[in-house]
Amino acid sequence: MASSLLTRQLAISLQQNLRLAAPGSRYVSKTATKTVSEFEYDAPSMKTAVPGPKSQELLRQLGEIQNVGAVHFFCNYEESRGNYLVDVDGNRMLDVYTQISSIPIGYNHPALMKVMTNPNNVSAFVNRPALGILPPENFPDKLMESLLSIAPSGMTRVQTMACGSCSNENAFKTMFIWYRNKERGYATPSEQEVDSCMINQSPGCPDLSILSFMGAFHGRTLGCLATTHSKVIHKLDIPSFDWPIAPFPKLQYPLEEFVRENAQEEARCLEEVEDLIVKWRQKGKPVAGIVIEPIQAEGGDNHASPDFFIKLRDIARKHGCAFHVDEVQTGGGTTGKFWAHEHWGLDDPADIVSFSKKLLTGGYYHRDELQPDKPYRIFNTWMGDPSKNLFLLEVLNVIRRENLLEEVVRSGKALLQGLYALQTQYPHILSGARGQGTFCAIDACNDATRDSIMNKARNKGLFMGSCGEKTIRFRPALVFKEFHVHQLLNILNDVLAEHK
Amino acid sequence: MASSLLTRQLAISLQQNLRLAAPGSRYVSKTATKTVSEFEYDAPSMKTAVPGPKSQELLRQLGEIQNVGAVHFFCNYEESRGNYLVDVDGNRMLDVYTQISSIPIGYNHPALMKVMTNPNNVSAFVNRPALGILPPENFPDKLMESLLSIAPSGMTRVQTMACGSCSNENAFKTMFIWYRNKERGYATPSEQEVDSCMINQSPGCPDLSILSFMGAFHGRTLGCLATTHSKVIHKLDIPSFDWPIAPFPKLQYPLEEFVRENAQEEARCLEEVEDLIVKWRQKGKPVAGIVIEPIQAEGGDNHASPDFFIKLRDIARKHGCAFHVDEVQTGGGTTGKFWAHEHWGLDDPADIVSFSKKLLTGGYYHRDELQPDKPYRIFNTWMGDPSKNLFLLEVLNVIRRENLLEEVVRSGKALLQGLYALQTQYPHILSGARGQGTFCAIDACNDATRDSIMNKARNKGLFMGSCGEKTIRFRPALVFKEFHVHQLLNILNDVLAEHK
Repeated sequence: MASSLLTRQLAISLQQNLRLAAPGSRYVSKTATKTVSEFEYDAPSMKTAVPGPKSQELLRQLGEIQNVGAVHFFCNYEESRGNYLVDVDGNRMLDVYTQISSIPIGYNHPALMKVMTNPNNVSAFVNRPALGILPPENFPDKLMESLLSIAPSGMTRVQTMACGSCSNENAFKTMFIWYRNKERGYATPSEQEVDSCMINQSPGCPDLSILSFMGAFHGRTLGCLATTHSKVIHKLDIPSFDWPIAPFPKLQYPLEEFVRENAQEEARCLEEVEDLIVKWRQKGKPVAGIVIEPIQAEGGDNHASPDFFIKLRDIARKHGCAFHVDEVQTGGGTTGKFWAHEHWGLDDPADIVSFSKKLLTGGYYHRDELQPDKPYRIFNTWMGDPSKNLFLLEVLNVIRRENLLEEVVRSGKALLQGLYALQTQYPHILSGARGQGTFCAIDACNDATRDSIMNKARNKGLFMGSCGEKTIRFRPALVFKEFHVHQLLNILNDVLAEHK
Repeated sequence: MASSLLTRQLAISLQQNLRLAAPGSRYVSKTATKTVSEFEYDAPSMKTAVPGPKSQELLRQLGEIQNVGAVHFFCNYEESRGNYLVDVDGNRMLDVYTQISSIPIGYNHPALMKVMTNPNNVSAFVNRPALGILPPENFPDKLMESLLSIAPSGMTRVQTMACGSCSNENAFKTMFIWYRNKERGYATPSEQEVDSCMINQSPGCPDLSILSFMGAFHGRTLGCLATTHSKVIHKLDIPSFDWPIAPFPKLQYPLEEFVRENAQEEARCLEEVEDLIVKWRQKGKPVAGIVIEPIQAEGGDNHASPDFFIKLRDIARKHGCAFHVDEVQTGGGTTGKFWAHEHWGLDDPADIVSFSKKLLTGGYYHRDELQPDKPYRIFNTWMGDPSKNLFLLEVLNVIRRENLLEEVVRSGKALLQGLYALQTQYPHILSGARGQGTFCAIDACNDATRDSIMNKARNKGLFMGSCGEKTIRFRPALVFKEFHVHQLLNILNDVLAEHK
């Protein structure tokens, strides 16, 4: 396969040289110099409506095994390249959703394929260890080279986990353990605590809480779900905890035009946070930690200002609550910095930072003082997967070698400018363009229009994601260049022009 | 690496032929014909005490990144083969714990290494899809060939997940959704339900419960942890749910010698189960599901009779509760049947069966009627990992080709007989030998003795696991043959002889 891939890359590279001569821009965009790496395609190419007949047949087959209501179409991952996702009907789409924001450097990146063909790596894939008891020889080194090389400021400790939900669940547990140890003055737990915990009762299982925000998404397992408040479908019928939920600021965009109004709104929310902390302490359910996303993604791409987060961090410190920044979707470079919370300009903004998706492995960083006091408190069979660390290491090499964070800033600027232009052109359809890096979004006038735009764009070769009630979210890979931005804007413009 | 491995296999094969001439038995065991596959080693080989100096240095390094109190030693997975785990100090141990029971067919099995070197598989590793929205073309086929080919009786539907905890969390959610849909007569949720669920309140987040058993282990995320009652260290300081906890039968072993006493004990527990279901219904926290392990593993390898499970299943049906069999540790062939609950002799023993560990992917089977009514109710970014399915498919091929379940029955019988002999020989140290297939255990007189036996055995090249308060658990791979049983028994006998 490797050699046939090279042949194909060569052919594609020749095609690209030919096509660059053709006009690349149609409406809002200017022609950009195409500098994408040679291994990928140069444009969408559509053969059927999506889902096509093959996808529909597979949907029927899978429907006999699972609920398939969420399946968009079936993919040919072998043929997908870079920013382009190919489906089983041979449709090639510019993918700016990237498996719910979890493909860091595009499909079939040659660097990742090399990880697979390196014989030194075989054992890491074939023998998945129980990392908490029997780590491989290179585990400390690999952690240093990969996750710790990108650790947020002030964090020297990291725990890997299998996915985002497990990361947040264990981050919550870490905060609870830390909080109770503080409360009992680091003394040995009482006999009453020991006995009561085995039957789910306090004081052993204490009535502690995590404060979260309306519109938040932190996962769907029962602990995480108690802090998730983005959509009814996630939460209905599932028992939960009586934990405090603060309003997340509802800001007006563009942020720079509504500084005063937004500051007032943020002040209102912060006041409510502090009220809730006091109220829940009085209820006997003290807040052990505050969890927040730098940008609420699933909830509708809701932003807040650095000032809001800085003050929130101060409130957490003042009330003795841990401060947990959930970077599962924002982390990994897509905002133009490796961690979105680095935009806040604080040296030590968090006690815990969780990650997954683009990092390929789940996990969380934490400060020294949140280190679990004993073994087996934070534990499970696998505790992550070293084979994912191997891929991550290569992803980081590519990000550094190709200066992809600078690329994200450049592409993100072009994308946001294009979105501003579109909402100026189509004010009755679009509004609220916003973003950081390529982590951008725009609102449609209602959910039906949003869905219609997305479907039409897909049939023209642009695959986007949705979030919130009526928002389109853009979550391209880090190899998304200005060239691709203009492709995206052209297709979107065509759809909107027809919609008008 | 592949070619150097073959060379090494040849060398090992020659060594084996030489060593077979030497006497293999010392005390309780008879010499068994050695029929292990040629790719593995033939005996333990120890160079240092464990952990050796290299492990200790790595422990110090990792200790600066994580709590390492649970780490036994560091491993050289490249050099490990079949039933033998090699550590970084060159010690080669017969491994009957197998990464907490999660290595199905031994280390570096050639069949699994071939999965890695097959170019058709590269894309499945490199492009991890969001399975719930964009499955790969071969996904229905691969599910049919792998997980559905071993589906428990009556189950045609399967949902993959990343790990055991996520599997149980989502199985619980599936039961809650099913239960509430029944309760509301499959009507559309009320406005009150829709509104209240977003703020964690009933009726949207209803006060439903899962009934579990003392000594149970179902995972450590917050939902799972509310049904886990095996060790204090798992539960202390973590908020929980007020869910009912029934006594698990405390049986006397060997089971066939205490039939009457054990039946009484089981009747007592079943009565308590029914009382709890009624009581929790009256408390307004009805039991949506009952979750149970076929053999409580982490809790101390506690068995119950088929009759107990059959009656428990009837109680669940009678009270309208779903019946969830957690086969995360017991599944995958280690009890001599692919699923431990197949020993019960019922056609349709469960509504949900969850798995992970030896299956390499997490997930759960369920009956048609527990299919979630809508998309996105059971959902997360990855929903499993197709690359793990590729390995599973190969594991199943090896199990079938090499009749490994028959092998497990044979080895398990030899192991249990050997354990009986040892406890007869050392009645002041050992008791309660029990097992199904190679899923065996024996109790030491106390935890200090248990730990001492395990450490001494490890230094002689036998690596075992512990569970419960004073139990040694045996969790060998499915390639554990009679030859290895006798190796195990010889080492254990040597340790006990010195202990005497």
